[in-house]
Amino acid sequence: MSIENLKDLYLHTLKDIYFAENQIQKALPKMASKAKSAELKKLFEAHLDETKGQITHLKEVFKILGEKAEGEECPAIEGIIEETEELIGEIKDADTRDAGMIAAAQAVEHYEIARYGTLLAWGELLGLDEAGTHLRAILEEEKAANAKLTNLGENKLNKKAA
Amino acid sequence: MSIENLKDLYLHTLKDIYFAENQIQKALPKMASKAKSAELKKLFEAHLDETKGQITHLKEVFKILGEKAEGEECPAIEGIIEETEELIGEIKDADTRDAGMIAAAQAVEHYEIARYGTLLAWGELLGLDEAGTHLRAILEEEKAANAKLTNLGENKLNKKAA
Repeated sequence: MSIENLKDLYLHTLKDIYFAENQIQKALPKMASKAKSAELKKLFEAHLDETKGQITHLKEVFKILGEKAEGEECPAIEGIIEETEELIGEIKDADTRDAGMIAAAQAVEHYEIARYGTLLAWGELLGLDEAGTHLRAILEEEKAANAKLTNLGENKLNKKAA
Repeated sequence: MSIENLKDLYLHTLKDIYFAENQIQKALPKMASKAKSAELKKLFEAHLDETKGQITHLKEVFKILGEKAEGEECPAIEGIIEETEELIGEIKDADTRDAGMIAAAQAVEHYEIARYGTLLAWGELLGLDEAGTHLRAILEEEKAANAKLTNLGENKLNKKAA
């Protein structure tokens, strides 16, 4: 895909995050299955449901643009998920693993927050208001998921690991 | 490195971000050299100086822990930087490339913000207050760098690309 202008870059980034959400959808059940804390497991499962809804939102955005919903390989999310899986394998103590998985999930959330923030800023300039409604809904969910992870880590699970 | 407890995980994450900062130190001059906007170039150069200072801060944290300053390969930052370099290569229009580089740099900043936030939370539980002073200084710089990128993008360079 050749990128000539901001509209092309917007579409490229949309395909990147679409790929990322699909990878996250695959990673979350593994993370949920490794969680010792019932609350963390529930949080990962709930975020899996949200992620499925976000993929539907993204399909709507592709439709608005008159483009086919397709991913474009995103080395960033691949790297973040690879690092997460390596880390899970390296930690033997279950409480420490929970703390590590919270941190890993927060790195994922921050990546998404950066990407959706960018798409919203570009979409505003491109007059893509309807697409913005979908992306804003996703961004709010990602920020809320990150806040829940912070809260569960700082108020409970990190202490168990310490 | 086998990770048995939160202290091990803290050290692992410190090595991860130390590796990441060193990769960022290598990537920033390339990004500065590709920037069309003089302001963006200056921003990347200023952040390169900050990054060098942050590496010094991290060396101090290793010293506080009585550990050797060394990186541990971080697939996450490698993926983010690989994606950035691919993107720079794919964009022919210089204004669009500037908008893309701002977005890429913000993905880097968000990764760092996630990691330093985690280290600060864990360090508090581990009683690593002096290390926290260094890490807090870095985190504030990363947040400020991200805000400057948002500002330059939204108020100036994205419009040029649109």
